[in-house]
Amino acid sequence: MRFDIITLFPDIFFGPLNESIIGRARKNGLVEINAVNLRDFAHDERGTVDDSPYGGGPGMLMKPEPIFEAVESLRRANSLVLMTSPRGKRFDQPTARKLSGVEHIIMICGHYEGVDERVRSELVDIEISIGDYVLTSGNLAAMVICDAVIRLLPGVLGCDESSFDESFSSNLLEYPQYTRPAEYRGMKVPEVLLSGNHAEIAAWRKGKAFELTSQLRPDLLDKDTN
Amino acid sequence: MRFDIITLFPDIFFGPLNESIIGRARKNGLVEINAVNLRDFAHDERGTVDDSPYGGGPGMLMKPEPIFEAVESLRRANSLVLMTSPRGKRFDQPTARKLSGVEHIIMICGHYEGVDERVRSELVDIEISIGDYVLTSGNLAAMVICDAVIRLLPGVLGCDESSFDESFSSNLLEYPQYTRPAEYRGMKVPEVLLSGNHAEIAAWRKGKAFELTSQLRPDLLDKDTN
Repeated sequence: MRFDIITLFPDIFFGPLNESIIGRARKNGLVEINAVNLRDFAHDERGTVDDSPYGGGPGMLMKPEPIFEAVESLRRANSLVLMTSPRGKRFDQPTARKLSGVEHIIMICGHYEGVDERVRSELVDIEISIGDYVLTSGNLAAMVICDAVIRLLPGVLGCDESSFDESFSSNLLEYPQYTRPAEYRGMKVPEVLLSGNHAEIAAWRKGKAFELTSQLRPDLLDKDTN
Repeated sequence: MRFDIITLFPDIFFGPLNESIIGRARKNGLVEINAVNLRDFAHDERGTVDDSPYGGGPGMLMKPEPIFEAVESLRRANSLVLMTSPRGKRFDQPTARKLSGVEHIIMICGHYEGVDERVRSELVDIEISIGDYVLTSGNLAAMVICDAVIRLLPGVLGCDESSFDESFSSNLLEYPQYTRPAEYRGMKVPEVLLSGNHAEIAAWRKGKAFELTSQLRPDLLDKDTN
């Protein structure tokens, strides 16, 4: 799988996506991530990629030409063009799973006050929002999507990691977990977890997962499992 | 405002939070962000911060002692201890606004398969989830929260930036925006935006914002504005 990320800040992608699990996946050739500097597609020496909005209003918009040309320089027959945007489909685990089956994703990271509408209507295949909050740019949103998608690629997580019963994969939140010490500052690990009785431990965990989910996120219990 | 971020990857915080708007806010002294290496609070020379879960199961959990000690070394009377977690309250714009009023936030970024439950129950004031998807760690989630909160601090956004009618602030998605050229590859900017008639432009934008919101996110129209 390959990601081409069109951004005004190509340097910031190589921190968070170089560490730990994602960094290992890149080193092992399981995923390629390429940050493309949008300013390389500007039409002037100053690297202008924004302009004022028609009809007035504060702030600057990203111009259409550099984005169209950047995408066209990268696009192949099997590419999906994704833009991070508050207007987009809400990102969730089933969407992450679907995206992990795509061979090539071109991501456009918004910045300034927005992006010329012609980019959305003519160039973009899917708009995705990572949540109902406003960020200074689409860069962090793009990183979040990369991270959630890449960890689902075959071979990226070790056996130990991938077999874990994760929140949202089963529509249940995680049960509480404990590690050593068995008592810390007067707080004890529940006895059942020290019992060695695997059936009882499994039952306790399942009960706790349901209890937490119905307390904190009852909406998850009504969802179909994908 | 000050953030202390307890993480296994202190280096990755200084990319995304050094650029652009957030970088400028840090330089202008409007916010301090300090990444704290959890391994500095390990009890052995190898810097062990994880251990296997009681009751069995795959993966490793973050141990309680280093996290308790890291938080205690940072905590003051006015600190809020926040942990990123799939179990947490769903992050949204009203929550970002509330957090922007807090003087000191200590963030715990989860990693491995989870965090010892005693951290959640005894140490953490609020758990926050940035969305219903699984990430390799809580680091990106912590960056997303920092970004959304910091841009709301007084003085962080310029006048041009802050007066913009943003998605979610008014419970409406943004209206479409256009910049030059007025025609690009046969695609024209809507005539009303070129008319110079401010009342008509305002009416068109309001209509489009309602139209897009009822098409794409009808749930937003039912929400109270905070």
